[in-house]
Amino acid sequence: MTDTPAFDIGSLHTAYAGGWPASNMIETLFERIAAIADPGIFLHLADRQDLLEQVAGLGSFDPTAKPLWGIPFAVKDNIDVAGMPTTAACPDYAYLPDRDATVVRLLKDAGAIVIGKTNLDQFATGLVGMRSPYPIPRNAIDPSLVPGGSSSGSAVATAHGIVSFALGTDTAGSGRIPAGLNNIVGLKPSVGALSTTGVIPACRTLDCVSIFALTAADAWSVFSVAARHDPSDAYSKSVPATGHGPLPPVLKIGVPARHDRHFFGDDAMETAYAAALDRLVELGHTLVDVPFDDFYATANLLYEGAWVAERYAAVKDFFNASEASFHPVTRKIYGAAKTLTAADAFNGLYALQALKQKVAPLIASVDLFCVPTAPRHYTTAELAAEPIRENSRLGTYTNFVNLLDMCGIAVPTGTRSDGLPASVTLLAASGKDGMTAALAARIHQASGLTLGATGWPQPPARPTADISAPGIDLVVVGAHLSGMPLNGQLKALEASFVRTAKTAASYRLYSLAGQTPAKPGLIRCSDDTGAQIAVEVWRLSAAAFGQFVAAIPSPLGIGTILLSDGSEAKGFLVEPVGLEDAVDISDFGGWRAFVDRPSA
Amino acid sequence: MTDTPAFDIGSLHTAYAGGWPASNMIETLFERIAAIADPGIFLHLADRQDLLEQVAGLGSFDPTAKPLWGIPFAVKDNIDVAGMPTTAACPDYAYLPDRDATVVRLLKDAGAIVIGKTNLDQFATGLVGMRSPYPIPRNAIDPSLVPGGSSSGSAVATAHGIVSFALGTDTAGSGRIPAGLNNIVGLKPSVGALSTTGVIPACRTLDCVSIFALTAADAWSVFSVAARHDPSDAYSKSVPATGHGPLPPVLKIGVPARHDRHFFGDDAMETAYAAALDRLVELGHTLVDVPFDDFYATANLLYEGAWVAERYAAVKDFFNASEASFHPVTRKIYGAAKTLTAADAFNGLYALQALKQKVAPLIASVDLFCVPTAPRHYTTAELAAEPIRENSRLGTYTNFVNLLDMCGIAVPTGTRSDGLPASVTLLAASGKDGMTAALAARIHQASGLTLGATGWPQPPARPTADISAPGIDLVVVGAHLSGMPLNGQLKALEASFVRTAKTAASYRLYSLAGQTPAKPGLIRCSDDTGAQIAVEVWRLSAAAFGQFVAAIPSPLGIGTILLSDGSEAKGFLVEPVGLEDAVDISDFGGWRAFVDRPSA
Repeated sequence: MTDTPAFDIGSLHTAYAGGWPASNMIETLFERIAAIADPGIFLHLADRQDLLEQVAGLGSFDPTAKPLWGIPFAVKDNIDVAGMPTTAACPDYAYLPDRDATVVRLLKDAGAIVIGKTNLDQFATGLVGMRSPYPIPRNAIDPSLVPGGSSSGSAVATAHGIVSFALGTDTAGSGRIPAGLNNIVGLKPSVGALSTTGVIPACRTLDCVSIFALTAADAWSVFSVAARHDPSDAYSKSVPATGHGPLPPVLKIGVPARHDRHFFGDDAMETAYAAALDRLVELGHTLVDVPFDDFYATANLLYEGAWVAERYAAVKDFFNASEASFHPVTRKIYGAAKTLTAADAFNGLYALQALKQKVAPLIASVDLFCVPTAPRHYTTAELAAEPIRENSRLGTYTNFVNLLDMCGIAVPTGTRSDGLPASVTLLAASGKDGMTAALAARIHQASGLTLGATGWPQPPARPTADISAPGIDLVVVGAHLSGMPLNGQLKALEASFVRTAKTAASYRLYSLAGQTPAKPGLIRCSDDTGAQIAVEVWRLSAAAFGQFVAAIPSPLGIGTILLSDGSEAKGFLVEPVGLEDAVDISDFGGWRAFVDRPSA
Repeated sequence: MTDTPAFDIGSLHTAYAGGWPASNMIETLFERIAAIADPGIFLHLADRQDLLEQVAGLGSFDPTAKPLWGIPFAVKDNIDVAGMPTTAACPDYAYLPDRDATVVRLLKDAGAIVIGKTNLDQFATGLVGMRSPYPIPRNAIDPSLVPGGSSSGSAVATAHGIVSFALGTDTAGSGRIPAGLNNIVGLKPSVGALSTTGVIPACRTLDCVSIFALTAADAWSVFSVAARHDPSDAYSKSVPATGHGPLPPVLKIGVPARHDRHFFGDDAMETAYAAALDRLVELGHTLVDVPFDDFYATANLLYEGAWVAERYAAVKDFFNASEASFHPVTRKIYGAAKTLTAADAFNGLYALQALKQKVAPLIASVDLFCVPTAPRHYTTAELAAEPIRENSRLGTYTNFVNLLDMCGIAVPTGTRSDGLPASVTLLAASGKDGMTAALAARIHQASGLTLGATGWPQPPARPTADISAPGIDLVVVGAHLSGMPLNGQLKALEASFVRTAKTAASYRLYSLAGQTPAKPGLIRCSDDTGAQIAVEVWRLSAAAFGQFVAAIPSPLGIGTILLSDGSEAKGFLVEPVGLEDAVDISDFGGWRAFVDRPSA
């Protein structure tokens, strides 16, 4: 019999495969809840006997048919689970849904087990986790600190390893801030990627269901199951859940220009952020300072105008009938929306559209952004003293994200000198969920951190093929190699780096005459006169591949390249007519070696 | 000296090319204005002497450098022209802009000449043309009828041939209804394709600048010049202005299911619509009955709720200060928006989003839709009696279009038994402006109608290359030629045939060994040892081209082919390594001649 495993998905599945029964998982989980003894985490817990019957009903362990077989998860209490009350942390609002939210159903269908419903900032309004009439969940790392919100219970439950993952929601940062404050991963999908059917709206145009997990690979596994277009959700979009291949060796990463970095006096957080950026450079990536004023101007829209009216609209009748049922801070925020006019709403939309237009070139200019997750830690006492101002500061790096239709993932980067967790959030344009998750996994692994508050070591990295992109593979030979002059063409087409490779030993490589930038030409010869040539494989969408091929100038073209491992892919070839005055450089073994030759 | 030409763009340019001076165009135009003697068309006319100086400043006739050289146009008076007052048909609101609206500037830069500013339903609110404090423009075909609006003056000026084209705006149908009622073409671009910078907003999220012209080809010429992304307009989008190639022989055209067709008692319009559909079938297209209830539900949103608040928001301060300055009907509509809340606005957006999600599969299921432009004609007396109800009925087939982000073009289809004009509107998903314009041109030509109210015959059809498809040209050499075994691969990818061609005389063609089906290989050689080889050019979308290239087996590939006319395109080449046991068949001049050779 296996020892009690860590609760990350890979460790649990390894244990199940080794014969550890899923019923033990349920027993372990209840022991853990008892040991942690935090009455603020769960607003509803499933019945132990019910859970034992559920895992018995899963049949034999089959992670192919059910990729989340026997994986326990918790659900933020603004998301419906059939048969469990939904409260939104507002007891007078509670109801008993008879249907699962779409995402819950998809996860159950994949074999995951709902353990219970978790505490939150009432109606998901807040980033602190303290705006609930129930006991406040304790920060899993340091109970004197705020746990972060609004998905407070989900983050804390995950950080303690009670569950493998938990669902949150994220409109302004509720899926990222509590991840950052509790040393776990928080994946905030592209807007519309996960259905919001069965979720109590905050701002319907912005709401996302989010995923807390112990590792980025686990968050991605959950995303892959949950990201499905849902016709019952008007804002649902098809976002690729097939992910992103191995990261290109060099990513262009935008960071806030130095004068746009705000830590509100928390020097340790500033130091930790700088260290995280240094780590990215060590990993080979390029940092680009980006002015953040327009991002912050966008963030200001979220609580200053129109969008507060979305929150009010979502519960208007209940609010008008039962203002006293609301948490005092929430009541104040919602009440302000009553006097906003339709003209105010449209003026807000216009202001957002103008900012979207302004920042679009900035977003397109980098592969992704790396920002601090939260600018600082706060004690619960600090928050109680200034509940709105400090809440707003917590959202410095999160509030603008959904308004700009970006995806994000918060990932732990290290432990500060005072022992508190440090975290960055990777942000990118809609649809780049896979790329950000893949880099987050790399950052987390490089940190060497243990998981959440559990002390469990990180599991081995999953094979990168787990996060692989659909598309057409292209073998590049010369000026399109990483770091070479034309590589930017591939990036502009959102190509992803797959791997380095060598051709079969039946090619000759020539340095072509009269090309600017300098380019080689690859040509297939008979098998006994050729050499292996170093190449890179990049992956493009069909449309991007088509555009790329259409732009290739004579005498270069695209044919089929045989690689040394016996596989084939489309790639650059030269017409024989283009070899006039060309120099055979096959002996260098590749264009990079030729370009970098000592005599060059 | 040439006789006075018709004022469609082609006829004017032919006249200019023949030596007819552009100053004559100005003189003719003022004579025409005097002869028509409708004081309701123009709210401001340019000074004759100024116009003569402008055309003198154009330099010599050069339609390549200036595709609208010497083409007169009128501008709806809610669009700024530097130095001419903008009134929006509300005298108290008038101001004198010192800058052109972006579209006006682009058209001027292309050589077009602004003649004046035209009357409209005040603030572009209305579809009737009667909500103006100025004299009402007379319908160009029958002065007892409403001219249609809100772009009334622009449509009537175009129908009389005073100008070659005119700019309108279209939020609910203002660029289509008056075209339909005056026997001209009205191109309502995809939302965002034409900049609205310098245009007084009606509903900023929906507003389009539109184009009235005597022919669809003319409307397309104007669109091609004016459709440019404008960073100063937050809602500007890049929409291809490169058009659509030869139409596929069979288009799938959605039409309202029989019980969803409404003509409000105008039997002649019903008959005319049925005849127009019969014509589409004669042209080889397929009609599909589509339920229109969700389109109508979308239309109802436009005046029932949130979007009226956009109109109010656009002029809020002026309205609150000067209600009495408004036309009584306009005042009533705008006033209703004052009490709408921000929650109402968002609830409207949610309702729209739900309908968008519902109709998306319908829109995707056809190439385009064909609907009546207006359900019926109204006399000015009928409209005066029921100003709001009949206005709303006029928008039956137009109100939903911008809400659903579709493009549309109204085109004359015939003359009814009572002598009044009949018109259909082609509607399609955003970005299909070129396809709808190309079909509109075909429909108009097939109708044999004269232009507007001028009696001018239709000019010869422009070569289809004028409305040429965006896409990537592919030169095929062998098994993909028309009628050959692999041609179906191109059709499956919706490739369109462009032309037959020959390569430059620098290629050799081989019959490859061991290929099923049989295939040739084309290879470029030195200029003195080659032959011209017969090929076909097909056009594919980037994605289709990418998929096609990805599937080409070794030893074939895609490179750049030089054609005998000096042009280049991507096309099939063979790797030299693939020529083992191949037979040189260059002397046949092409694969088809080789396959069809007498000895075969």
